[in-house]
Formats: sequence, C-alpha cells, structure tokens
Amino acid sequence: MSWVDVDNPCMPVKGARERYLVRHGSKVDLEKIDAQEKSLFGDAGKGEQEPQFERLRAELQELQKVLYAQNQHRVLVVLQAMDTGGKDGCIRNVFSRIDPQGIHVCSFKKPSAEELAHDFLWRIHSKIPANGQLVVFNRSHYEDIIAVRVKQLAPESVWQRRYRHVSEFERMLAEEGTTLVKIFLHISKDEQKRRLEGRLANPDKHWKINPDDLKDRVLWGEFMRVYEDVISHTSTPQAPWYVVPANRKWYRDLCVARILVDTLKNLNMSFPPITWDPGTIQVAD
Amino acid sequence: MSWVDVDNPCMPVKGARERYLVRHGSKVDLEKIDAQEKSLFGDAGKGEQEPQFERLRAELQELQKVLYAQNQHRVLVVLQAMDTGGKDGCIRNVFSRIDPQGIHVCSFKKPSAEELAHDFLWRIHSKIPANGQLVVFNRSHYEDIIAVRVKQLAPESVWQRRYRHVSEFERMLAEEGTTLVKIFLHISKDEQKRRLEGRLANPDKHWKINPDDLKDRVLWGEFMRVYEDVISHTSTPQAPWYVVPANRKWYRDLCVARILVDTLKNLNMSFPPITWDPGTIQVAD
Repeated sequence: MSWVDVDNPCMPVKGARERYLVRHGSKVDLEKIDAQEKSLFGDAGKGEQEPQFERLRAELQELQKVLYAQNQHRVLVVLQAMDTGGKDGCIRNVFSRIDPQGIHVCSFKKPSAEELAHDFLWRIHSKIPANGQLVVFNRSHYEDIIAVRVKQLAPESVWQRRYRHVSEFERMLAEEGTTLVKIFLHISKDEQKRRLEGRLANPDKHWKINPDDLKDRVLWGEFMRVYEDVISHTSTPQAPWYVVPANRKWYRDLCVARILVDTLKNLNMSFPPITWDPGTIQVAD
Repeated sequence: MSWVDVDNPCMPVKGARERYLVRHGSKVDLEKIDAQEKSLFGDAGKGEQEPQFERLRAELQELQKVLYAQNQHRVLVVLQAMDTGGKDGCIRNVFSRIDPQGIHVCSFKKPSAEELAHDFLWRIHSKIPANGQLVVFNRSHYEDIIAVRVKQLAPESVWQRRYRHVSEFERMLAEEGTTLVKIFLHISKDEQKRRLEGRLANPDKHWKINPDDLKDRVLWGEFMRVYEDVISHTSTPQAPWYVVPANRKWYRDLCVARILVDTLKNLNMSFPPITWDPGTIQVAD
C-alpha cells in the first residue's frame, strides 16, 4: 500500500497534499487511517492554529481573485463524508473569506424526478465550473455509486459500470481544463455518535435531524467498505482523492485549506496582460 | 413626488428602507438625489460605523440560517448600477459573513448566443431562488431594457413592451412566494471619473478596465434618464426599488445591509417544528 504511513518516520511529511493524497493505484484501508490524527501544523491544539488558518484563508482569498481575473482555469472541489462528517461546517469555515461572487457551492440532494429521468451525470455536468470559477460540490456523483450500492437502490450491473463512467467523465473534465480536488472527510463511528447526540441535546439543531438517517449507522461498515473501494479505484493523477482526518474540526479545516491553497498555487496563475496602453487613456468629464 | 426629501425635517426618518424606497407610482429624479448623502446611522464617518456594520452582517448571517432551515421563503436581491458603481464591492462586503453555501451570486453579462436564442427572461428565470435560498443578481433583466434602450440594441417596440414583461414576471414571482428587493447604487458622474482614474493609476486593477466602457460616459445623461423611467415604472409593493446613495462605499454598504436585514426580519421566519419526539431517539453504537 502506498498510503503514507503515519507511524513511518522515514516518510518525509511535506504538507497536507502529500500526507493525505491517495496515490493512483493504491488501496485505501480506512480502518488504518486514524480520524483523530493531527500530525501536521505543529503539535498544538485549536487555539494556537487560528493564525495559521487565518493566513491560509487570506491566501485562498487572494488566489481566487487571480483565478477570476485570469479567467482561464476552472477549479472543482468535491466533498464527500458520512452524515455529520462536517461538509457543511468545512465549507463555511474554509471558504467564508472568499468573495461570495467567486465561489459557488452546489449541494446535491436526493435526485428530483427530472434528474432521475436523465443519466446520473446530467445534473452534475450542468454545475461544473466555467473559466475563472471555483465550484464546491457538497456531495456529488459519488453518491450515485456509494449510496446506490450500499442501500441497494440499483442492481450491481448499474453501479459497477459507473466506476468507469465517473473516471472517464473526470478525465475529460481534466483534459479540457478543469482542476479537480476530491476530499473525503474521514470521521470515526464513535465521533458520529457524539455528534448525533450533540444535535439531539440541542433543540436549535433538531431541524437538521432526520430520524431515518440514524438508521444508516447499522450500514457503517458497509459504507466504509464501499468508500474504500470507490476511492481506491477513482483516485487518479488528474482527479486525486484526499482522505482527511476529520474528527477534529480545526484540523480538518486546516488540512482542506492547505490542500486547496497548494493546488491553486501549483497552477502558477497571474493577472492577465492588458492589450491597451494606460498612458493613452483619458477619462472624459 | 413621494420620494422622501432629505431636506424636509418633517418627514420622520425610520431607517434605510423607508428612507430610500421608491414608492409605487412616484417619479424618481436622480438629479435630486444626492449620491454623496449620509444622513442615516449617525453623523460619523467610516471608522465609527464599523461596529454597526459588523452587527448588521452578524444579523444577516443569523437570518440566512433561519431562511435555510425553514425552507419556505425565497429571497432575490437585484443590484443595478453604472460601471464602477460598486456592485462587486457591495456584494463582497455585505454578504461575506454569510455561509457560502447559503448565498448564490449570479452575474449576468452580455448574453451568449444560446441566451439570445430565447426570450430575455429565460436565463433570468433559471437562476431564481428556490425555497430557503438567497440569490443576488449582479446586473439583471433590467439591462435588457436599460442598456438595450440607451445603446439602441433593439427598436423601441421591443424595449417598450419589456416594462410590462418585467412587471408581470416579478408579480408572478412574488405571488408564488419570492421576496424581491431591487437596489440601484447611485453614484455621481464625478465619482465615476474618480474611480476610473483610480483604476488607471493602479496596475493591479488594469485587467478590470475595458477601454470601450469609458465611452459610455458620454451616454451618462441618457442612462440616468432611462434609469429614472425604469425605476419609476417598475417599483411596486411586491417588487420595490431602493435608490441608495453610493458615492461613499461605507454608507452604501450600511444602507444595503440594513435594507436586507429589515426585509428578512419582516418575514417573521422561525426554525421549523420537528415531527418526532427527541426523547424517543437513541443513537446506536
């Protein structure tokens, strides 16, 4: 397994991208990945990490401006997690300093009748970023394999071939100019229990609870098995998966912000050149 | 004219909504509205107003959460202004504390070939908020009257009937459950000159400049005349226009935030009731 081993001190730890990338062709074992882990960003707890997080958010804000101005790259972030895994909170925290005009969040829920009357990638394709855009998917086409498979919403012949549909779709997006970043927020089953109990204890959060969702907990093991299979098979150089330890919210947010900042920096973007001479321009009265 | 007169001390000033609302049936005279004005929020300058603005942004953040949770109301904010009028900055400042997942900004540029192959409201309709959503239009269907008329992109017979199309479309939206707030950010021609010169002096902002746009300045008077006509004819109780003095950015942002907070408060929203008994729920191990 090429998964970077936490306990292997010989493996140089460069940053969150190298640390949590699922390498192409490797086999993920979620049980071996500690959701509680916090080995990057120094040894301190949340308080001391705030300045680091603020700096990352400021960097993200600046990078988005250039992305928009250059109007050339398209960036798609796919977020997946179990219920209470922290997708909403992560989006709120990591992206909330970015110009609201420069970030689009698409939340994919249960498909509508019209969406079901098309192939599963139809509604996804319509939400893909255009030039200069940063789009975040809160859930995604991966539900059409994972949830469909675990909850047996379609026969194996259907979800099995979707692995290829998804990989080829993402290859096309990447080759046509979209930068893809796929992140699985990894929480433990115990942590989910704590979070669900926390919501039950807080009347302000009751509206978020659908008692039926609690039943998914009996499928936890099956969900993990399918996530492992899907992530292992669809993490490619052009559309990599990252598995981020997410039991600690502050650590999850730092990792996600770091992965995005490094991905955007890697694009070597710059403000576009102008095609006119500022010296010749006069603003009329 | 039922426009509230700044110089009339008999008119009680309640807040930004009452102050800058264009009353149904009234005739707007933009020359009589001072873009430099700052009569609300006390007499101080930007520095002292920061805490007030922070409070308004915090209120907006909380109101959006209830809007989303209740999943019943739909809120559409339409922003119009001349070039450099501050639409981008206003969106960035007023909405940047809101959960990025809870705000959608749609920027309408020159229509594409596909958009032009439909009626002018086709691309607009597809971006209207759904239940629980807050959507901001940066420019809008109003360009299909204003720009089209001033720049003579279509004959009078076309833009003339669009007044009715727009009013009836907005009436339908409102009657079907959308709350509309339309805001014109009002700057003076001198202020636009200052801003354009500021951009020219700052190489980091050159990418924002299209030298052709500068030519619109000769049409300034015509733009004002058409804005007056359009605003006067399309400010209705269910889809009101506000004309906000926007020469001072901090004042513009305070007014827009205040108008939105008061509009959302008026909806008397609340978290939805739950249909299950929290006492009976156990989270399985």
